Amino acid sequence: MLIRLGYDLRFDLPAPTVMTTLLHVHPSRCGDLREPDFLHVEPRVDVEFFHDLFGNLATRLRLPAGTARLHSRTLIEDPGTVDARDPLAPQLDLAALPPAVLRYLMPSRYCEVDLLSAIALELFGGTKPGWERVDAICTWVHTRVAFSYAKARATRGALDVFTERVGVCRDFQHLAITFCRCLNIPARYAAGYLGDIRVPVAPDPMDFSAWFEVYLGGRWWACDARHNTRRAGRVLMATGLDATDAAITTTFGASTLTHFEVISEEVPGDASRAVPTHRAATA
Amino acid sequence: MLIRLGYDLRFDLPAPTVMTTLLHVHPSRCGDLREPDFLHVEPRVDVEFFHDLFGNLATRLRLPAGTARLHSRTLIEDPGTVDARDPLAPQLDLAALPPAVLRYLMPSRYCEVDLLSAIALELFGGTKPGWERVDAICTWVHTRVAFSYAKARATRGALDVFTERVGVCRDFQHLAITFCRCLNIPARYAAGYLGDIRVPVAPDPMDFSAWFEVYLGGRWWACDARHNTRRAGRVLMATGLDATDAAITTTFGASTLTHFEVISEEVPGDASRAVPTHRAATA
Amino acid sequence: MLIRLGYDLRFDLPAPTVMTTLLHVHPSRCGDLREPDFLHVEPRVDVEFFHDLFGNLATRLRLPAGTARLHSRTLIEDPGTVDARDPLAPQLDLAALPPAVLRYLMPSRYCEVDLLSAIALELFGGTKPGWERVDAICTWVHTRVAFSYAKARATRGALDVFTERVGVCRDFQHLAITFCRCLNIPARYAAGYLGDIRVPVAPDPMDFSAWFEVYLGGRWWACDARHNTRRAGRVLMATGLDATDAAITTTFGASTLTHFEVISEEVPGDASRAVPTHRAATA
Amino acid sequence: MLIRLGYDLRFDLPAPTVMTTLLHVHPSRCGDLREPDFLHVEPRVDVEFFHDLFGNLATRLRLPAGTARLHSRTLIEDPGTVDARDPLAPQLDLAALPPAVLRYLMPSRYCEVDLLSAIALELFGGTKPGWERVDAICTWVHTRVAFSYAKARATRGALDVFTERVGVCRDFQHLAITFCRCLNIPARYAAGYLGDIRVPVAPDPMDFSAWFEVYLGGRWWACDARHNTRRAGRVLMATGLDATDAAITTTFGASTLTHFEVISEEVPGDASRAVPTHRAATA
Repeated sequence: MLIRLGYDLRFDLPAPTVMTTLLHVHPSRCGDLREPDFLHVEPRVDVEFFHDLFGNLATRLRLPAGTARLHSRTLIEDPGTVDARDPLAPQLDLAALPPAVLRYLMPSRYCEVDLLSAIALELFGGTKPGWERVDAICTWVHTRVAFSYAKARATRGALDVFTERVGVCRDFQHLAITFCRCLNIPARYAAGYLGDIRVPVAPDPMDFSAWFEVYLGGRWWACDARHNTRRAGRVLMATGLDATDAAITTTFGASTLTHFEVISEEVPGDASRAVPTHRAATA
Repeated sequence: MLIRLGYDLRFDLPAPTVMTTLLHVHPSRCGDLREPDFLHVEPRVDVEFFHDLFGNLATRLRLPAGTARLHSRTLIEDPGTVDARDPLAPQLDLAALPPAVLRYLMPSRYCEVDLLSAIALELFGGTKPGWERVDAICTWVHTRVAFSYAKARATRGALDVFTERVGVCRDFQHLAITFCRCLNIPARYAAGYLGDIRVPVAPDPMDFSAWFEVYLGGRWWACDARHNTRRAGRVLMATGLDATDAAITTTFGASTLTHFEVISEEVPGDASRAVPTHRAATA
Repeated sequence: MLIRLGYDLRFDLPAPTVMTTLLHVHPSRCGDLREPDFLHVEPRVDVEFFHDLFGNLATRLRLPAGTARLHSRTLIEDPGTVDARDPLAPQLDLAALPPAVLRYLMPSRYCEVDLLSAIALELFGGTKPGWERVDAICTWVHTRVAFSYAKARATRGALDVFTERVGVCRDFQHLAITFCRCLNIPARYAAGYLGDIRVPVAPDPMDFSAWFEVYLGGRWWACDARHNTRRAGRVLMATGLDATDAAITTTFGASTLTHFEVISEEVPGDASRAVPTHRAATA
Repeated sequence: MLIRLGYDLRFDLPAPTVMTTLLHVHPSRCGDLREPDFLHVEPRVDVEFFHDLFGNLATRLRLPAGTARLHSRTLIEDPGTVDARDPLAPQLDLAALPPAVLRYLMPSRYCEVDLLSAIALELFGGTKPGWERVDAICTWVHTRVAFSYAKARATRGALDVFTERVGVCRDFQHLAITFCRCLNIPARYAAGYLGDIRVPVAPDPMDFSAWFEVYLGGRWWACDARHNTRRAGRVLMATGLDATDAAITTTFGASTLTHFEVISEEVPGDASRAVPTHRAATA
């Protein structure tokens, strides 16, 4: 399956501003790209690339005051299958986890593991370690938290989600991540494209999406407490401890988002045949 | 100057427990060691070494139920001078910061940059960027927060410190780090040895100490909102986003600390002459 | 001056629900009413009147499932002058305050006096007690907090307002009340009608309004950190510790507000002459 | 049974200070006093009596700088029976509650009903209304929260207790009160004497005690999530929304408590026979 990806973001900047972005397909998926994934910036400025602490491909931009437009269109090959799962992948003992994974058991800004541990144990301590526990957590969060764009709040942490029972995509994942960590399942935040691939088209306009990953049996697996269903068509852009690390754009200074458009849709058969041309074009 | 370093920690563990430690001198200071810095564990268990996300030398231990003892004694050469400072090192523009440093401008568990930004701007927005701002922050925190071991609390974040005005070493640094980040000065948490080198001996028993580092003019500099004075004899063990990343020991399960002893003292002249023997022994 | 007052609220109730209201003009203003201030409820249910702990005139309703409509129209005589002020009214010593006023120095749900005391002292400790201090507080809150209906949140307390710097009417007053209490000025929450009397007409649709009162020199005075200007035409409905006590309606169970209309406007001369008829009608 | 009651509190006051106290036996128990319950203050100052918003007998003192001593000894007759309970007293419908009781369903400073409602419903929504629900709440709190004087914190609210799972007497009651209110059971905070009457003597030194009251079937009943057992010998001093309203002493300014002694013990038979003399003395 080929998926057309793209975004078009516009900002009003009252003053010259530094912005960092995580607007590229994650390095782990670069091999699947069929067109270049190139961040266009208007007005034209230097785009400085770097890899952040978590291995994401980031950019830093120095934007002048005025209107800034960031956009891209690319094409990616995707198996089109739903989120992978090996039911036999076990929850590893703490002594068996790769050391690099241990940090994903600890608290972070929006995942207050220290505050939610007793609660997590109460709610999920009786479940079987591993997938059963992860599923119980996702279902609980999905069922008990209501989705509301109107109640989005950038400072909401997992404890707030737990008491307020409302949030947007990131809030669902933060609470689920925190519960997983409390119960010794490494969990990290993930952001990327998620179109309505092979599901009924949702009424909301497309947005980037947040999900999370758990570490079971030697690898990371995508999970999603927001939708609580295995989905096709996730295209990862960034992972990190929580939304702090995987914000698509971070602006150091005042800015107003004036336009926001994201595309992530399956390309029908005919269109996909046209791809080699594109590939040639990029060679 | 030679500094004798060491610790002796004992824990009661009701069940087999995994523990991670950051009990070694930081890799950046390994060249100064005049004796091996070796973590002894009783009972004897395998000690697994790894470097964490922040470049610290960490270990993982699988301890049986019962009493566990962790101890070490080593010797380090130290210039004996107080915390370095180049008054000409400027606060760098966001576009000029090394990309790896940018994460230290963002929120972390105990440094709620998103919650304290307006406050930081109010308090310190009028100060000159760079050292003057860092000094103003340290002095403010040092003056307004009272030290109290009795009021230590593992879940206290910078906002709590700001409202409660009380804390231990880590709390002072968390608040100062947060204010620095709010004002675009990269700041990170640091933990290590800090003896009463060339200062009047404090009445408190020795402990590991927390301080923080700011990034000015192209390098990190040690700062200390707890003592608010340049000190000699800091021996770094770990750095990270906040205390989450630089905890000397992290126990995944119940444990009781039953004994805690830390040594960090200047070795008088005669004793220091004995060092070459030690050095030979480690060769 | 005569002011036409009224409201029309409609709720969808999925199940039979108990509601309490504070929808009447405050007992202290009853003498100014020129028409009855009568809560009409549709469907017709018994309206039980009581005075709450703070002396407000409250009602309790037992509403069936379905649509409920609460409405009233009344007319009140008002001096039309702006909020009274005696610049000579001093901040009373704690020993001189009437005992009944002391509770208004203490914390309440949305006014965390215990958390904001050090901050209040820092910000306003240098101001002169009394009106100068109250004015400094109102100006500070008015200047530093941004108004946003979109960011209303029922659980936001004064500390949240202080860090988030955004809110609706009640949030401005909560922060100002808290600062006043921290500095030993009794302060209480007030809710009522506030039309655009003798001020340029605001673009927002009419709503009930929140303000607060401080106790200086032996009486309560209306203050308003939201508008930070002395206004004409406030008609008090309820006072209390904070918004908890002065909520216009409190629903014990699920409900959706489907219609909300408030009227508070000066009656032009001709219309006001028609009033005696109304008064006769109520005789 | 006769119970000897008394206290001896001493404070260091760096400056002249206003203090309010709730150091008298509650008006509802005055008829049981067999000796006057008289607050002695040293140095001698005027003691101003008043009844607060909740009907407690309060005093206001204007103390000079230096040492202040507050003490009393009195004798009260007590049935010596454990906390009363009528298992048939039902949880009243919201429409049937006396209006004055409705405030005890709402949030207060340390009882964040708005934050804990979803949680309360989850934990206790399946229990039978009335005593069964109250008992479930008390048992839950008693079982899940650990008592620790060392971790007392004046700013801890019910949500903190829920996440931290540790506290002193007041914290247990705050969480239980909040859960009750969330589930439409009116609940209020209570403070008073509680000696080791007919229970094994506890190792802790005597203190005033906090408990709470629920409103079932037309009256208030004493409950105690700290001890979770029906006790004899409670002597009420004050009730209120939470600890804010029932603090034994409230000092408006700096003060250090240097001595704290509370007596509440059964007078053995012989001693009690001596009482008529005292009674004569008070006649």
